[in-house]
Amino acid sequence: MTDPEFALSCPIPIRDYPRVLLAHGGGGRLMGDLIEKMFLGVFGDPELRRRHDSAVFAVPEGRLAFTTDSYVVSPLFFPGGDIGSLAVHGTVNDLAMSGARPLCLTAGFILEEGLPMETLWRVVRSMGEAARASEVRIVSGDTKVVERGKGDGVFLNTAGIGIVEAGGLVGPESIRAGDAILLSGDIGRHGMAILAVREGLEFETTIESDSAPVVAPVLALLGAGIEAHCLRDLTRGGLASALNELAVSSTLSFSIDEGCVPIREDVRAACEILGLDPFYVANEGRFVAFVPEKDADRALAILRSHPVAGDARRIGAVLAGPAGLVTLRSSIGAARVLDLLSGEQLPRIC
Amino acid sequence: MTDPEFALSCPIPIRDYPRVLLAHGGGGRLMGDLIEKMFLGVFGDPELRRRHDSAVFAVPEGRLAFTTDSYVVSPLFFPGGDIGSLAVHGTVNDLAMSGARPLCLTAGFILEEGLPMETLWRVVRSMGEAARASEVRIVSGDTKVVERGKGDGVFLNTAGIGIVEAGGLVGPESIRAGDAILLSGDIGRHGMAILAVREGLEFETTIESDSAPVVAPVLALLGAGIEAHCLRDLTRGGLASALNELAVSSTLSFSIDEGCVPIREDVRAACEILGLDPFYVANEGRFVAFVPEKDADRALAILRSHPVAGDARRIGAVLAGPAGLVTLRSSIGAARVLDLLSGEQLPRIC
Repeated sequence: MTDPEFALSCPIPIRDYPRVLLAHGGGGRLMGDLIEKMFLGVFGDPELRRRHDSAVFAVPEGRLAFTTDSYVVSPLFFPGGDIGSLAVHGTVNDLAMSGARPLCLTAGFILEEGLPMETLWRVVRSMGEAARASEVRIVSGDTKVVERGKGDGVFLNTAGIGIVEAGGLVGPESIRAGDAILLSGDIGRHGMAILAVREGLEFETTIESDSAPVVAPVLALLGAGIEAHCLRDLTRGGLASALNELAVSSTLSFSIDEGCVPIREDVRAACEILGLDPFYVANEGRFVAFVPEKDADRALAILRSHPVAGDARRIGAVLAGPAGLVTLRSSIGAARVLDLLSGEQLPRIC
Repeated sequence: MTDPEFALSCPIPIRDYPRVLLAHGGGGRLMGDLIEKMFLGVFGDPELRRRHDSAVFAVPEGRLAFTTDSYVVSPLFFPGGDIGSLAVHGTVNDLAMSGARPLCLTAGFILEEGLPMETLWRVVRSMGEAARASEVRIVSGDTKVVERGKGDGVFLNTAGIGIVEAGGLVGPESIRAGDAILLSGDIGRHGMAILAVREGLEFETTIESDSAPVVAPVLALLGAGIEAHCLRDLTRGGLASALNELAVSSTLSFSIDEGCVPIREDVRAACEILGLDPFYVANEGRFVAFVPEKDADRALAILRSHPVAGDARRIGAVLAGPAGLVTLRSSIGAARVLDLLSGEQLPRIC
């Protein structure tokens, strides 16, 4: 991981501070330096520069979306991403799922004493790049340091605010029988990318996480007047858990065509070797959209015009009942219930 | 800590789940139960009940304040508070310091596998009570569980949104030479309360944390038309660090009358025994207010009419220079520079 050239770019001299100290979270000069030189340098927002207790900004009258996620992914770096970019993508995607345009984020760092300063620098840089790519400001933050052995490198929290651009309420309560269910792309990559690194598995190709912001295709749907009844990203628990939660919340039934759900060959093979079902594996750049049948084809075309949703498919439909049931139909016509797992397949996936 | 009667009130049966499992953060049925029965039961907000990715609510046109803090205090419970109430007070106070009325919070839990379920229940209950007392909604949340030995019981993050009620910009940039500096009450209690528990120290009286919401006196100041130039709560690093940061940010100089700063006898004695300076010890319910000299007496009277600021005092004045200098004048007229510490006196105080 050490790269002398990258280390030289770190605004906290690594020769003097090779590792994070408890004092970097203590409210004194060292914490001030870390905030001023590293966080403000990278995030560069005028509200952060004010160094006051809260960011303050004007909003138009309307509806706001507000959300939070903590990130404890292990390892911190994985093919296709790291905890810094994940913490931006995860939270802007949660805002987009409410039909909102992300406006700004807060960032809360919980660092473990002894964390290499170069690692923190990598995470902060990646977070800054992801925020710029997602067109979202990081306006307020907080840094805590816990003793060695009381944390695990870096835990990150982001909270986010967005302006709702959807006309109606985007959420489980708006799903209607007859709605088409669209999926924005292939599933299972994020979870398998993490697992492959964690377990030291070698496949023919490196499976890269799908971690990405999905804001653009969502705003395009809304901008085109598509009445998105519900949007849901497919994180912990994967496609199967998201569908189950929504079927329960909406008291409707979903029928899914198994053959229409795209799964890459390498992901499928890796899942088979490990005895995992890709329908339950986490994604970080995939979502389902529930739209009226009449809008389905147009919505698909809009999604496919965005690279992050280029492989979008129609995967099923909403039925009136039985409430809470998700059925998976195979290509030969057999049907099975897609149930909710009690626990999880993989811990610390996000 | 175990109390059979309290344990019986826990909505997750402690006999079945005496401790938090990794699966409680896994996105499956166990996590759903924890959210549904414990978090929704206590916080009870309709937006939480929607179980969607973000909360959505209407806001009037105007200025919003947005802030975050993570809480890693150790121990989790201390005289006068716990991590749950602290996580509410800390964040609503940060909003108040920007002249804002707190509107809603998000809550992000990072739990360590093996945490007693009763402990989590205590924290969540306390958080709910503090939110109700602070008249703030908890509208969105997130739960992660890390393996045993990779966390420390409970880490909490809260982010908050408030509506700015102050006419001008409340912050370091608005401080003016000639402003009076008011302090809302005695200092040093939170830090000494934590330290006494942590080190197993016994004093004649139990020192209780000052952890409390200071929203009411701040809104009363603003409501009475007091032009609060700057407000700052005295958390990590205490009064001395807050004053130093503000003197630097405002490029002004502060002269503080040492004898006017209230410090309780038990806090002073405990600090002396431990070789700590109470000016640097953390508070969680104290703030300084910078107001025009002409408003100072009226502002003091308003603060004192609120129990949480009942012992408010005028402690000094703002001078034109030298920029960034904070001077402490003793009762016999001697002056010394109140400097910024490089690290910290006490780790994990909040």
